Amino acid sequence: MPLLTLTSDIGQQDFLVGAVKGQLLQANESFNIIDITHHLSPFNYPQAAYVCRNAIRNFPQDTFHLILVNLFDEKPEHMLLAEHNGHFIGCADNGLLTMILEEVPQKVVALPLDKTQQKNTLYVTRIFAEAFTQLLQGRNLENIGDISVSMQVKNPLKPMLGNNWIEGQIIFIDNFENVIVNITREDFEEQRKGRSFKIVFKRDEVIDKVSDTYADVSEGEKLALFNAAGYLEIAINKGNAAGLFGLKGYSEKQQQHQYLNNRMFYQTVKVYFE
Amino acid sequence: MPLLTLTSDIGQQDFLVGAVKGQLLQANESFNIIDITHHLSPFNYPQAAYVCRNAIRNFPQDTFHLILVNLFDEKPEHMLLAEHNGHFIGCADNGLLTMILEEVPQKVVALPLDKTQQKNTLYVTRIFAEAFTQLLQGRNLENIGDISVSMQVKNPLKPMLGNNWIEGQIIFIDNFENVIVNITREDFEEQRKGRSFKIVFKRDEVIDKVSDTYADVSEGEKLALFNAAGYLEIAINKGNAAGLFGLKGYSEKQQQHQYLNNRMFYQTVKVYFE
Amino acid sequence: MPLLTLTSDIGQQDFLVGAVKGQLLQANESFNIIDITHHLSPFNYPQAAYVCRNAIRNFPQDTFHLILVNLFDEKPEHMLLAEHNGHFIGCADNGLLTMILEEVPQKVVALPLDKTQQKNTLYVTRIFAEAFTQLLQGRNLENIGDISVSMQVKNPLKPMLGNNWIEGQIIFIDNFENVIVNITREDFEEQRKGRSFKIVFKRDEVIDKVSDTYADVSEGEKLALFNAAGYLEIAINKGNAAGLFGLKGYSEKQQQHQYLNNRMFYQTVKVYFE
Repeated sequence: MPLLTLTSDIGQQDFLVGAVKGQLLQANESFNIIDITHHLSPFNYPQAAYVCRNAIRNFPQDTFHLILVNLFDEKPEHMLLAEHNGHFIGCADNGLLTMILEEVPQKVVALPLDKTQQKNTLYVTRIFAEAFTQLLQGRNLENIGDISVSMQVKNPLKPMLGNNWIEGQIIFIDNFENVIVNITREDFEEQRKGRSFKIVFKRDEVIDKVSDTYADVSEGEKLALFNAAGYLEIAINKGNAAGLFGLKGYSEKQQQHQYLNNRMFYQTVKVYFE
Repeated sequence: MPLLTLTSDIGQQDFLVGAVKGQLLQANESFNIIDITHHLSPFNYPQAAYVCRNAIRNFPQDTFHLILVNLFDEKPEHMLLAEHNGHFIGCADNGLLTMILEEVPQKVVALPLDKTQQKNTLYVTRIFAEAFTQLLQGRNLENIGDISVSMQVKNPLKPMLGNNWIEGQIIFIDNFENVIVNITREDFEEQRKGRSFKIVFKRDEVIDKVSDTYADVSEGEKLALFNAAGYLEIAINKGNAAGLFGLKGYSEKQQQHQYLNNRMFYQTVKVYFE
Repeated sequence: MPLLTLTSDIGQQDFLVGAVKGQLLQANESFNIIDITHHLSPFNYPQAAYVCRNAIRNFPQDTFHLILVNLFDEKPEHMLLAEHNGHFIGCADNGLLTMILEEVPQKVVALPLDKTQQKNTLYVTRIFAEAFTQLLQGRNLENIGDISVSMQVKNPLKPMLGNNWIEGQIIFIDNFENVIVNITREDFEEQRKGRSFKIVFKRDEVIDKVSDTYADVSEGEKLALFNAAGYLEIAINKGNAAGLFGLKGYSEKQQQHQYLNNRMFYQTVKVYFE
C-alpha cells in the first residue's frame, strides 16, 4: 500500500478532512493515509514549515506527502508537485515548500488548475490524487506537470547571528508548554566554536548548559535541550515553561500588526558565547 | 481492504474510539478504518448531518460508514443499516439518517439488539461489525436485518423560502471561523431566477456578489462564496467572520431554550432578490 | 498487515506523532497504525491507565501497542516490552504498565537504550519498532530483551472499602461531561452483597439505582450506570454532570500539592450499602 501523509489547517470538526480522504481513496483505494496533523496554523508559515519538515523526514522513501495549507492565499493557477530526497510533496505555490525543505526542491512541476473550475480544497485534492496515481503508474514527474514553473520562494525563518551571539525565534510551543526555538544543534555548535555559553530569555532568565533529558534537573527547574527534531527547547521539568515565562510563538500575523503586540510576551531567545 | 469510515461524538481523549476500532478489527482485521471526525455535536443534528453527508459522498462505492452519534437518545431496540447510492451506512434509529441523506434510504433494515444486553457503544459496535462482515461475505442487506422496520424520519433543516428571499440557518462554523449556511448553490439559483441579490446578515451587513475564492477581495474584507460542499459561506479574507460579526451556529438545544438565547448572536442569513 | 496501536501524551499539533508513525513505517511499511489517543494526561497515571487498559483489551490478539507516555520522567536506561494475554505492549519503565494491566505482565523484558544516544521520543520509537519487527520475524520475547529486568511497579488506583461502603475516585470525565469513577461493576457487586445502596457525591447528591441507559431518566435528571468499560458513571441525561456538580478528575499532580486544591471541586464518589 503506497504511503500518503496528510497535513492541513482544516481542524478536526469539519467534513473536509474526511472528504479529502474519500477523494484520495476514490483515486486509489490502496493508499495508506497517515494523518500528520490538521491543526497547522494557517497564517504561521514558520510553524507550519517546522511541523511538516520534521514529520516528513522520518517517513520512508517514496512516500507521498499532501500538504493542504493556505491553498487560496492568492488566486492560484496551479499547484506544486515536488520530488526531493526520494519524497513526493504536493503543496500550494505559496512559498511554504521552500520553507519546509530549507532549499529549492530537486525537482518541481506545476499542476495546472482548470480556469473554469471553482478552486476549492476538494478540487485541488483531485488534482493531486491524479498526479500521485500517475507517479504510481510509473510516469516521471517531468511528464505529469509543467517543468518550466517559476515557483514562489520564501526563505526559512533563520536565527540572527553575531560574533558572540545567536538569536532565535520561538517557532512552536508543544503540548507540555515546552518552547521550541529555531536554533538547531548545528546552528548552535557552528556559532559556539567550543566556547561556553549563556542562553538568555525573558530578559534575565539564564541557562548555561544543555541537558540530555528533562530529568537532568530537579522538578520545577528550567533547562535547555535539543529536542527530537534537533531544535533548541526551553523547558521546565514537569512544568509549563511557556506559561510561566510568558513565552509565545512567533507569528507572521503578529508581525504585521506589531504595534498591537502584547508586551508581556517574549518571542525570542538569545545565546551569548564567551 | 474494505473501507470503513468512523464518525462519532466521542471526542479524542476517551478510550472509546480506540475500543470501537479494536472491536471492528476483531470482526475483520482487514478493515481500513478512516476517521472522519469524533467531534460531532451530539445534540446538533443539522450540524452532524452536514458533516456526515459531505464526508460520505466523497468516498468510493461499497464503503461502510459507521456513525456513532446519540445512540441512546431513546431506549433503542434496534440499530439501522442502510444501503444508499452504493454506500452502506450504520446509524442509530434517531432520525439522523434521513437528515444526512435528505431522503429515505434506498434500502434499510433494522439490526435488533438483544434485550438482555446492556446497550452501550461497544455492544452496538459489535452488532454493526457483524452486519458489515456478513455484507462482505456476500449476503444481501435484506437477509441481515428486519426489512419491515418503520424508521424514525427527521426532515433536514432547509432554508425558508419567499418570493423574493431565501433565509438560511448557520449550520457550521469552520476552523477559520468561516460561517456555513444551509443554502446550497442549487437552492440559491433556483430561488434567484437570474435576479440580482443582496446577502444580508447581522441586520445591516450586506454582500451583493458571490466570490470564487477568498482572495477575490482584499485582506480583511467580507465575502460570500459556495464552499467545497456547495453551501453558502460567509467569510473574511484572512479574518474570522464568526467572531467579528457575532454569528453563531444553529443548535437544536438552543432552540428548546430559546428564552435563554444570548441576543448578541445571529443565527440566520437572508438573501433578497430584486 | 500487523496491527499497531499508538497512544501518547504528545497532542495533535506537534510534528512528533507524524514522525513516530514515519519511524514505525520505516521499520515495517506493512504496519496498520491505529491511533488510540494522543491526549493522555502526562502526569495523571490513573487516567492514562484507564484509557489504555480499556482500549487495548478490545483489540485482537497479537496486536502491538505502543504507549508513549512520560518516557523521560526519570533518566531511563531501558524501555519495557511485555507480552500479556496475547498482546504485545511497549512502554517506559515508569510504573504505568502495571497500572494498565492491574497485574504484573505475564512476560516482560527490558530493551536497553544506548548510553551514547540522546534519549528522545524518536530514538525510543526506533528501539520499539526494531523489537516489534523481530517479534514479527518469529523471535521470542525472551530473545529480544533482558529477561532479568526488575521493573518499576505501581499499584492501580483502587477504591477504598469499608463494611458498608465503597469510595471511588473520579478517573475520567468524558466528552459529554459524564463522570467516570474507578469502581467497576465487579467491585460494586462484590461489596454490595445484594444490599440496597445509595451513591452519594458532592456531599448531598444521592442516586439509589443503577440505570441501563441515559434515557432511563427524564432529560436533565441525574443517573448512575456502568459504562462500556464496566466502570461506574455519574451522568445527567442530555446534561453535563461534571460541570453542574463541580466534579473533577483525580490527578496525581494535585495530590502532591493538596494545599493548593480548589475546595469547590469534589473528586470522590461514595456508595453506602444498607
